[in-house]
Amino acid sequence: MRTSQYLLSTLKETPASAEVISHQLMLRAGLVRNVASGLYTWLPTGLKVLRKVEAIVREEMERAGAIEVLMPMVQPADLWEESGRWEDYGPELLRLNDRHNRPFVLGPTHEEVITKLVANEISSYKQLPLNVFQVQTKFRDEIRPRFGVMRGREFLMKDAYSFHLDESCLKNTYQKMYDAYCRIFERLGLDYRPVIADTGSIGGDASHEFHVLADSGEDDIAFSDTSDFAANIEKAEALAPQGTKPEATEQLTKVATPNVKTIEEVAAFLSVNVKQTVKTLLVKGDDEIAPVVALVLRGDHQLNDIKAEKISGIATPLTFASDEEIQTAVNCNAGSIGPINLSIPVIVDRSAAHLADFVCGANINDMHFTGANWDRDFQNYSVEDIRNVVEGDPSPCGQGNIVIKRGIEVGHIFQLGAKYAQAMNCGVLTEAGKNQILTMGCYGIGVSRIVAAAIEQNHDQYGIKWPSAIAPFQVAIVPMNMAKSARVKETAEKLYSQLQQAGIEVIFDDRKERPGVMFADHELIGTPFLLIVGERNLDNQQIEVKNRISGEKSLMDISDIMNLFAR
Amino acid sequence: MRTSQYLLSTLKETPASAEVISHQLMLRAGLVRNVASGLYTWLPTGLKVLRKVEAIVREEMERAGAIEVLMPMVQPADLWEESGRWEDYGPELLRLNDRHNRPFVLGPTHEEVITKLVANEISSYKQLPLNVFQVQTKFRDEIRPRFGVMRGREFLMKDAYSFHLDESCLKNTYQKMYDAYCRIFERLGLDYRPVIADTGSIGGDASHEFHVLADSGEDDIAFSDTSDFAANIEKAEALAPQGTKPEATEQLTKVATPNVKTIEEVAAFLSVNVKQTVKTLLVKGDDEIAPVVALVLRGDHQLNDIKAEKISGIATPLTFASDEEIQTAVNCNAGSIGPINLSIPVIVDRSAAHLADFVCGANINDMHFTGANWDRDFQNYSVEDIRNVVEGDPSPCGQGNIVIKRGIEVGHIFQLGAKYAQAMNCGVLTEAGKNQILTMGCYGIGVSRIVAAAIEQNHDQYGIKWPSAIAPFQVAIVPMNMAKSARVKETAEKLYSQLQQAGIEVIFDDRKERPGVMFADHELIGTPFLLIVGERNLDNQQIEVKNRISGEKSLMDISDIMNLFAR
Repeated sequence: MRTSQYLLSTLKETPASAEVISHQLMLRAGLVRNVASGLYTWLPTGLKVLRKVEAIVREEMERAGAIEVLMPMVQPADLWEESGRWEDYGPELLRLNDRHNRPFVLGPTHEEVITKLVANEISSYKQLPLNVFQVQTKFRDEIRPRFGVMRGREFLMKDAYSFHLDESCLKNTYQKMYDAYCRIFERLGLDYRPVIADTGSIGGDASHEFHVLADSGEDDIAFSDTSDFAANIEKAEALAPQGTKPEATEQLTKVATPNVKTIEEVAAFLSVNVKQTVKTLLVKGDDEIAPVVALVLRGDHQLNDIKAEKISGIATPLTFASDEEIQTAVNCNAGSIGPINLSIPVIVDRSAAHLADFVCGANINDMHFTGANWDRDFQNYSVEDIRNVVEGDPSPCGQGNIVIKRGIEVGHIFQLGAKYAQAMNCGVLTEAGKNQILTMGCYGIGVSRIVAAAIEQNHDQYGIKWPSAIAPFQVAIVPMNMAKSARVKETAEKLYSQLQQAGIEVIFDDRKERPGVMFADHELIGTPFLLIVGERNLDNQQIEVKNRISGEKSLMDISDIMNLFAR
Repeated sequence: MRTSQYLLSTLKETPASAEVISHQLMLRAGLVRNVASGLYTWLPTGLKVLRKVEAIVREEMERAGAIEVLMPMVQPADLWEESGRWEDYGPELLRLNDRHNRPFVLGPTHEEVITKLVANEISSYKQLPLNVFQVQTKFRDEIRPRFGVMRGREFLMKDAYSFHLDESCLKNTYQKMYDAYCRIFERLGLDYRPVIADTGSIGGDASHEFHVLADSGEDDIAFSDTSDFAANIEKAEALAPQGTKPEATEQLTKVATPNVKTIEEVAAFLSVNVKQTVKTLLVKGDDEIAPVVALVLRGDHQLNDIKAEKISGIATPLTFASDEEIQTAVNCNAGSIGPINLSIPVIVDRSAAHLADFVCGANINDMHFTGANWDRDFQNYSVEDIRNVVEGDPSPCGQGNIVIKRGIEVGHIFQLGAKYAQAMNCGVLTEAGKNQILTMGCYGIGVSRIVAAAIEQNHDQYGIKWPSAIAPFQVAIVPMNMAKSARVKETAEKLYSQLQQAGIEVIFDDRKERPGVMFADHELIGTPFLLIVGERNLDNQQIEVKNRISGEKSLMDISDIMNLFAR
């Protein structure tokens, strides 16, 4: 490709609208352009990367035995009514009407369409297991699209759905998908981790996310520092502290804590370590049990919403009680609540439950207890894991301690179970001649998002440093002052022709630009090798080679250049 | 691919819903499944064909210097307001609102998005010409989707848009696209024709359609029987009859034609050839000129709406006058109108204007004139080409006569001109430093539709006969009673492995089905070669090869099989 016949579209300035580095670099390097909020055009350079990601994903899905189909983006509402998601799915589901006023949706995923298809096409256990995938355009009407294609509204996704007679068959395909995902992210050249994940609203039994590690990631991942355990912090279990609970040694004492609001202020005011305090949060309960439930955490710990939501008696989604509800339930301000003498359900985190002689609110404004002890001072509570793990916690795998890193979720695999198959009556005749509802798995990869995640992980102050497998070009030819030197032009043209004939993706910068402009553009775009053709080095039949990843520059004989790309 | 691990999904019965043969075969061969009106899922076999078509289109577009991008399917309404199409485009444009109630459309084409992009990205004449394309999902809310993917609502299209400083540069790229389209349809292995086309509502100056010839086509194409002239019948010029008009020899005579309605009945009643009669149609006029205009055609000719619409003074779209309007204008029934004594504008087709001593309505119910002659009996008329050409007409190219065949439009190229660039202020600085609005071309190929068109052209009573370039599989291995013969199984497995290793797309029918079922399925799917592995022939180290296209069967030595696929 010659730049003169290409749409390079690099920008010198960083657009003010772009908050994260990948979005900034995708705009500056001419990979995408914004069309409207969360909607992008992929320019030629970006599309090359996107297609390379797509090709690797497709190859590995096929290698793992999945079969490709293509479902429509526009889906009839009746399928969504059948599955129940027409009601359940929030405003991210874009609903629309056709000219005959029939309701449709723009597909955010395709469980309904594929389950209906399989219900119609598959009738016998002999046709199972079946694993079908597509690489297709999705739409999710994000309330606040941001970070470029990282959280866009229209995006390219690989979604796969598997169908099974039983759980053990599902687990088998699930493992194949897990392995295929590992191969995909390895081939993409990304530093990634499969992490245990919450199954969320999509339902189901087991789930892993695949994260590209990057400081800018939106998710916290908990790792063991000695094993390969990794889990999304939403899901990482906080173990109960080891050993037996210390004995009570202090008397329960009510103390005044005037104008002391936060738990840190309480600890400071009473001169105790915040780890020796508990904080009590009131959340809405299931209407049938109690309107309000108390959650008790150690002062230094954070509530984990996902864990709390799963406890029966607590309303979903997790909602904090209003000031009014707090007054009604405990007759004091939020800052003075404590478990003792409470007449509402009390759920205590494992670590809080391990304390003795602790500080807690006294359910009277501006009053706390010191020397509080479970069982002696308050009996009616249950113990659960309701907090986020923190660095240094023992790993739930039993080996080592937790460290926390940030990740960008680029893949997600679920053991879905029978949720959709049941709702849409997707079954087959078993060997015994009985109709049996199928068990499903689903497996997603954010193809567009991978492009952004790769950049978040691989860049420097000059631009993108593509892993070779997804670089838009393998090499750029940068001739210096070609207009003035027939020898430079001839050498550059010859190299270009050789590289093209060898099937190497090469961009030949034939613009009449200063060398500095050309270098900056190709470093920005992140082409792995720059071949700099200049008068001086040609005296020795040499050209300068710059490695974009290592930054190394070296002189090479022209006759050796092709060896750089030998496969 | 083994059928046991594949989603074959063939059907024995023809679904009642499918009207045309391509739709019937696409359902029966398991290429697509209906999701909702005009919305389809592409099953694995269909998707293979679709991707092959896509790949050929992409390769030839790139060879012709076009650069690939990917624009979003969901487009903001403001771009469409800027171009004027928000108002102009009918209900085929699906309009929708996002969660913030902002208006969007599902893109039926992408002139607005690309013109806006180019307006932003291209600033200098040095960056021109530019030709960008995408292969992308389109949505058109057809009032009556039918014929399967032939006229679906969501479909895959290749659309390209070129940008130029001047007309001559546009013509140059237009010719490149014309040539690329010819290569594409040749490589696809289809019998196709480029035909001169009307530019229609998209506007612009010159246009060709590319048609796949098939008896079931929706369009009539007029060809010359001696030159390579071809035009959509909408556009094919009907020349004036050669020679001078015959002299008037008869007297104008009013005759009673009681209960005679159609022009054929008039001719029969008066015992004259229908070619010696004229029929007079009243259509709505532009309000400024006249409410109703008369169009006069020879009795055996058909009005061409597109030609008539282009005549000034006639309302667009062409609309026939109501019975009431006819009564007001001529005070007689539609069957008795004639040009003589009419006080409204009269437009006479070239062939009708060449008649002498003809029959026409007398503008009195149940009365006609015989012996009518232009100029002698009626002077105030104009002569235009307003009819469809018919077989035997002289070709407008000047060579040979017209023959008419039916075609399926699969591609369309336009010289668009400045319509969009002007509306969206898409210009560059010229060499002289002046801002200049660009001239555009646009070039579409219906990728999904090609799959259906290929089937309309290539099938027999057993199923599809794919051109080799787009066959989903090149060869099917059909083992006979594999379960009972170790030798058959071993040979089939070995062949499968050899073919796979040679990179040949092979489907190995390892189902436990009767040979007849397997033959029927592979003939239906249209795999070019069937390798039938049976006990008897193995005695001679032979297998039977069936050519799906020619129908020939032959015995081949196993050792020669791979030569069938030597490239």
